[in-house]
Amino acid sequence: MKTEPMKLLTVIAEAVLEDRLVADLIRLGAKGYSVAGAHGSGASGPGASDWEGGNVRIESLLAPEAADRILEHLAQEYFPIYGVVAYTTDVRVVRGAKYR
Amino acid sequence: MKTEPMKLLTVIAEAVLEDRLVADLIRLGAKGYSVAGAHGSGASGPGASDWEGGNVRIESLLAPEAADRILEHLAQEYFPIYGVVAYTTDVRVVRGAKYR
Amino acid sequence: MKTEPMKLLTVIAEAVLEDRLVADLIRLGAKGYSVAGAHGSGASGPGASDWEGGNVRIESLLAPEAADRILEHLAQEYFPIYGVVAYTTDVRVVRGAKYR
Repeated sequence: MKTEPMKLLTVIAEAVLEDRLVADLIRLGAKGYSVAGAHGSGASGPGASDWEGGNVRIESLLAPEAADRILEHLAQEYFPIYGVVAYTTDVRVVRGAKYR
Repeated sequence: MKTEPMKLLTVIAEAVLEDRLVADLIRLGAKGYSVAGAHGSGASGPGASDWEGGNVRIESLLAPEAADRILEHLAQEYFPIYGVVAYTTDVRVVRGAKYR
Repeated sequence: MKTEPMKLLTVIAEAVLEDRLVADLIRLGAKGYSVAGAHGSGASGPGASDWEGGNVRIESLLAPEAADRILEHLAQEYFPIYGVVAYTTDVRVVRGAKYR
């Protein structure tokens, strides 16, 4: 099966940030996203000492440039204020064009 | 710790497809799977312009050949009709024999 | 965007094991974790022939040594008794220091 490399971006944040994060992802190049509920306690940034309950895990398949752009945005706008965790994973997809 | 490479297949689809997808996975070589609920909006195929609500995220650890066989099946049978997203990730497991 | 390599550990287990697993993760070096519900059927160890319903998926970003230590612990203490599935994925994070 022919597959293409793509970046999977995972963002874990307080649920209250979901709409804002999703809007930012779309604006910065995401063609789709998937959200699931989660709870946990963070290796979190300042201001999120208590991170129990009410988290979301947002995932999006992205071209490398879009993943980079979004990580940069998260690091500037969210990390200093919120307990947001973000990481990228190398994945392979079929028909990569639809994620670009 | 001795680990072995394995493929993690992730499939995101409308919840109504869960039973059928799981049956296909098992038939094509998956020894186990894990399902969680999700919502989102897709970089989806034709026929799934509105993908809000009621999705599932199905994951399965697979030998490379099984992952390939399942991706091929998804691309043929699901992608043209449903808003199914699928990707594989390289992971490492302990005692890989149980996933083969 | 400057990113650093990190290990993502994923553990899927019966929900009843969540508190014990999380305590073990923290004790063995995890700085945070995220938990979501799941259901499924396992490529599971002995003692978990029926693994339907009531699972959790625990994820933690870890330095390689901590991931290795925790996998070793899981393999010794959980795999022989419970239907626990665990795998690691190479991911990249921004500001890796907070996960060490």
